[in-house]
Amino acid sequence: MSSTFGNVFRVATFGESHCKGVGAVVDGCPPQIPLSEADIQAQLDRRRPGQGKITTDRRESDTVAILSGVENGLTLGTPIGLLVPNRDQRPGDYAEMRNIPRPSHADYTYQMKYGIRAASGGGRASARETIGRVAAGAVAEKFLSLAWGVEIVAWVSGVGELSAPAPDLGTITRDMVDQALVRCPDPASAGQMTEIILAAREAADSIGGVVSCVCRNVPPGWGEPVFDKLEARLAHAMLSIPAVKGFEIGSGFAGARMRGSAHNDPFVLRGGQLRTRTNYSGGIQGGISNGEPVWFRVAFKPPATIGRAQETADFDGNPAVLAAKGRHDPCVVPRAVPIVEAMAALVLADTALIQAGRAAGFPG
Amino acid sequence: MSSTFGNVFRVATFGESHCKGVGAVVDGCPPQIPLSEADIQAQLDRRRPGQGKITTDRRESDTVAILSGVENGLTLGTPIGLLVPNRDQRPGDYAEMRNIPRPSHADYTYQMKYGIRAASGGGRASARETIGRVAAGAVAEKFLSLAWGVEIVAWVSGVGELSAPAPDLGTITRDMVDQALVRCPDPASAGQMTEIILAAREAADSIGGVVSCVCRNVPPGWGEPVFDKLEARLAHAMLSIPAVKGFEIGSGFAGARMRGSAHNDPFVLRGGQLRTRTNYSGGIQGGISNGEPVWFRVAFKPPATIGRAQETADFDGNPAVLAAKGRHDPCVVPRAVPIVEAMAALVLADTALIQAGRAAGFPG
Amino acid sequence: MSSTFGNVFRVATFGESHCKGVGAVVDGCPPQIPLSEADIQAQLDRRRPGQGKITTDRRESDTVAILSGVENGLTLGTPIGLLVPNRDQRPGDYAEMRNIPRPSHADYTYQMKYGIRAASGGGRASARETIGRVAAGAVAEKFLSLAWGVEIVAWVSGVGELSAPAPDLGTITRDMVDQALVRCPDPASAGQMTEIILAAREAADSIGGVVSCVCRNVPPGWGEPVFDKLEARLAHAMLSIPAVKGFEIGSGFAGARMRGSAHNDPFVLRGGQLRTRTNYSGGIQGGISNGEPVWFRVAFKPPATIGRAQETADFDGNPAVLAAKGRHDPCVVPRAVPIVEAMAALVLADTALIQAGRAAGFPG
Amino acid sequence: MSSTFGNVFRVATFGESHCKGVGAVVDGCPPQIPLSEADIQAQLDRRRPGQGKITTDRRESDTVAILSGVENGLTLGTPIGLLVPNRDQRPGDYAEMRNIPRPSHADYTYQMKYGIRAASGGGRASARETIGRVAAGAVAEKFLSLAWGVEIVAWVSGVGELSAPAPDLGTITRDMVDQALVRCPDPASAGQMTEIILAAREAADSIGGVVSCVCRNVPPGWGEPVFDKLEARLAHAMLSIPAVKGFEIGSGFAGARMRGSAHNDPFVLRGGQLRTRTNYSGGIQGGISNGEPVWFRVAFKPPATIGRAQETADFDGNPAVLAAKGRHDPCVVPRAVPIVEAMAALVLADTALIQAGRAAGFPG
Repeated sequence: MSSTFGNVFRVATFGESHCKGVGAVVDGCPPQIPLSEADIQAQLDRRRPGQGKITTDRRESDTVAILSGVENGLTLGTPIGLLVPNRDQRPGDYAEMRNIPRPSHADYTYQMKYGIRAASGGGRASARETIGRVAAGAVAEKFLSLAWGVEIVAWVSGVGELSAPAPDLGTITRDMVDQALVRCPDPASAGQMTEIILAAREAADSIGGVVSCVCRNVPPGWGEPVFDKLEARLAHAMLSIPAVKGFEIGSGFAGARMRGSAHNDPFVLRGGQLRTRTNYSGGIQGGISNGEPVWFRVAFKPPATIGRAQETADFDGNPAVLAAKGRHDPCVVPRAVPIVEAMAALVLADTALIQAGRAAGFPG
Repeated sequence: MSSTFGNVFRVATFGESHCKGVGAVVDGCPPQIPLSEADIQAQLDRRRPGQGKITTDRRESDTVAILSGVENGLTLGTPIGLLVPNRDQRPGDYAEMRNIPRPSHADYTYQMKYGIRAASGGGRASARETIGRVAAGAVAEKFLSLAWGVEIVAWVSGVGELSAPAPDLGTITRDMVDQALVRCPDPASAGQMTEIILAAREAADSIGGVVSCVCRNVPPGWGEPVFDKLEARLAHAMLSIPAVKGFEIGSGFAGARMRGSAHNDPFVLRGGQLRTRTNYSGGIQGGISNGEPVWFRVAFKPPATIGRAQETADFDGNPAVLAAKGRHDPCVVPRAVPIVEAMAALVLADTALIQAGRAAGFPG
Repeated sequence: MSSTFGNVFRVATFGESHCKGVGAVVDGCPPQIPLSEADIQAQLDRRRPGQGKITTDRRESDTVAILSGVENGLTLGTPIGLLVPNRDQRPGDYAEMRNIPRPSHADYTYQMKYGIRAASGGGRASARETIGRVAAGAVAEKFLSLAWGVEIVAWVSGVGELSAPAPDLGTITRDMVDQALVRCPDPASAGQMTEIILAAREAADSIGGVVSCVCRNVPPGWGEPVFDKLEARLAHAMLSIPAVKGFEIGSGFAGARMRGSAHNDPFVLRGGQLRTRTNYSGGIQGGISNGEPVWFRVAFKPPATIGRAQETADFDGNPAVLAAKGRHDPCVVPRAVPIVEAMAALVLADTALIQAGRAAGFPG
Repeated sequence: MSSTFGNVFRVATFGESHCKGVGAVVDGCPPQIPLSEADIQAQLDRRRPGQGKITTDRRESDTVAILSGVENGLTLGTPIGLLVPNRDQRPGDYAEMRNIPRPSHADYTYQMKYGIRAASGGGRASARETIGRVAAGAVAEKFLSLAWGVEIVAWVSGVGELSAPAPDLGTITRDMVDQALVRCPDPASAGQMTEIILAAREAADSIGGVVSCVCRNVPPGWGEPVFDKLEARLAHAMLSIPAVKGFEIGSGFAGARMRGSAHNDPFVLRGGQLRTRTNYSGGIQGGISNGEPVWFRVAFKPPATIGRAQETADFDGNPAVLAAKGRHDPCVVPRAVPIVEAMAALVLADTALIQAGRAAGFPG
């Protein structure tokens, strides 16, 4: 609950923008998994700010230390403590905002909920909160990859009005995604997206976008109906990411416009296994994975912190004009790609262990 | 987990299509709340089959009995047992399907997960599973209504290609919604939706749709960041409903196409309180309610069980043709309206109690 | 939480003394386990009142119905609904107690906590609450027995000042335990215990006792350190049983008086496996089972409801004299034996599934 | 689960003996509570090794850093990260034990459970694991003290065969407890206990003991029946502490020998409130606090690691002789006092927030 996620494979994260550090405790990771800081750093590097002209220029190396749970390069089965110190803090940037809650940011709601809030405004609503997720997700991914061959790849599929053509779900890789800073594997779209983001930045504005994700090699049987259907856990995970406003699995909202005869995924024998001819279901039926790729899309709103002046009100209700001075991203989706992958990994790892227990629990 | 939902206000549901009954245990409902079977029956009646030509004609009175937790018309604070016996069972309808997994249904995945499945196919994937949710949700609603004045209203906002114009979120009521069997409060759209559904039924086919929902009078401060943001819990709840493929809060996927300057909800003093001029945020910022109406949309795919012949494969991979004989809905959204309301209520009740504890926990 | 117990193998119970019924929902029981009402009834029969002169003469057949989750005699992996209707209710017996909280009963605390309480006084503090535990525990036992060969046997080892000699932990059976109504397998002690109980009853008084329990064939590796050590989960389970005041595992409080050189259990090769020569550890080291029998003791206080007059105060603080008229047990331990077994089974089943998931989660 | 404890007030701990550090994440602590590292350090200092001749001479300053969740000396309501670096590591001390599992330690069970174990043997079975508990417990105590005036005091009440006379539960303080290194407030007993411990150390042996604890000013109404009775949560918490073999609340095992007429706590008006004349119940009835002091005892076995030679077997089953070279405590109870207090605080804080939510949840 709150800053804890998962049941058997569980993570607790901590840290806000201007404290000593951010991090996570991963509890329930299976033992004997090769794990080093480099495994985790790779995804943190994809998430960190300062990656180029389309992201914020806050400078953070975001170097992770494994505090516990790993010895001689192998997980012990005990909690894995992960810490990333905060370095480049400029709380002064936020001085003006003490009295004016940023529109569509969390300053107001944190104040109403807790009666107090961090100097930086929204506290845990800072993007730095997601470091703990990405670090923990990298651990989950290592387990999923070694134990089940699961592959998780996310990419930017939309920025503003532009939607990129869908890549082949069976072959898309992170390398392809990372060819462009904007993390869209379609080169033409990537170029246009970059233009859109730069235009927003020049206008001291921001822009929304969509991240798509596929999880391959998820075996049939993962997901716990009724309330912990695999898509329900994924939706929970994705909507918990800052700035997310929507989630679609498989056909999604387009599926709501279809007839059953077109939408149903007929079974067919392929490679000696029962597979489906189409995959409108998104790899899940009745809340349980069916062996097809699990694919979904996540909608991100435009960042709330913008440089251009906004007419709003201060905490006392007096009219006020706010123009943010802090460093901020004009568009979050390029950096959100590893966050989406991390959250998918956390859901799948937890689900995998629960189903493995059920399947193995009856040895006779 | 699995068939349990919620932390402090918690429900466990049980029952499949052809067993003795379906129901729920509500654990953690506050004491001294007036509650009778009639409070619950009202929503069950809106959910039950046989409501008219656009729903299945399976006949079930779906009469609920309160087994425990209520005395002299008041909740005791102890678990509330709720039971709805099953009556109109025709397992014979499912005989043909023993060997052919229905496309896009849960027959195959239940078999792969559990190595066994109910006579009716998907077991808990039956629509009857949702009775437990609706019954428990009605209890949650009673609490939310009396304690906080919360009002939850859902309606059908889309069927197939048709989208109805949005009603006024501040004034829409269940009475308005129930004027038409299809549960769309816009009369013109309701008529067209009915046509679309009947056309699908005549074609022995099915059709998808969208349910919208608003929760009014949610006070500022509900929702537990980071991982249990209010929208994340709602997304989890909604994607756990059978046939749901998507969830959007506030601006949703449309918000991903907008710029921040247009999307941000500026603050304004209204009625002596800080409110927002627009509500693209959907009443939630940083995972915490801000006092504005919480509104969201849920996409339902077309029902998988259709009368028309489908080319598919049996469990052994042999080509097979399936034409379902069971009674089934051509479109689920009219009956899904109370289910969406129930799940929203379960999320809000749990969230309310956690925040109330925090707020009251520091009496000094 | 509250009336829910367990993580992966989870039970939610409901029902108080004078409502329609008591029962449980078992969520997470593995599929394909042979299960019938007879499996459950056997333990309910050992728990029910009216078994003879040393128990209450409230008459309840306590007949269980499986509402869901089982088809053709096999579990489906879906929630198992269990219901036992209440029949022999005499709320009139409790009329006098409306204004006088019974000393050491839960009337006062339920009133303070909930601001309301059931006609019968303590509501869920009624002994009938334990029916749900016993029913759910019988399901857990069936799984543990078939999947792992686990055997759980509890017995009465003390009544009042009398302690019975310890039986052989490796061979004691329920048949041996049930030779005497008092459920002490040592015939001489059983006779004396019966005398002690009858003497208490004749004095319109009550008497405490101790239940011991052994769990055999628990494989090494069960239990989740740090906070969910196997003994911690067992202690939680046992202290949740009404009237329990203490729990000891292995050497227990006597171990606190020993030196390490005497208390340590040295390893020895036996039957090709590393075993321990002694078992002061109670089959658990570091919170994890070590393959030796898990054994523990549970202290039950004398029942609070007694026929003899007690000088106390009413809810307003006025001096009052209370002499209970209800039917009640002079000593709970004979009927507590199946309750202790049930709670042990619920802990072990949950623990088994979590460890099985960990062990199987890394197939390579 | 595992290294996570609590529902609403929740802690996740991490760290073993020879990694970079140990610590905890406290999630769900209410906001606006004054908190500094000094608040936490006080209890860590009472727990740390090297306090004198009766404890291990491992040197650790055990200095805590608050990583997050506190700003300007006040809690933010966000997760509080706590870190204590490890310094004085001598893994060489454990070299011999790689092949010989220490009797009654966790080397064998960790190996069986995880298939791997830390260089130090039992990994999280190290006493250093308890640092995270004590640090988190100090946070819980600060909240309980300020919000409710709760006072928690534990002391050593037994070492070996010696039991100290009970202090007055209403007035005993930590200052009184800390008068002697052995933490027994009865001076005569403290002296004898010290003798017993030194004698054990001289014999290269160890000795068990008992810690008693009282929690004052717990208001009526805390504790969640059925399964989360206050005493059940306390038992769970205490049995999760390394080396604990038993738990008694109120009358405990002695209560099992009593008659109801002697054991019942009659009500009486005192200070305008309904109180009880005696307190055999231990401040809890039906799982709910009744306003009287909550008091309980915890049995600790003698430490398993002893210097004297023990005949045992190595991992392969070959006979072996083990004489531990590591630094270890001859008796854990003096240092266990703050651990017992910490675990009691964690239980009470969680319970308080849940009940506060219930009580406040129905404002009308």
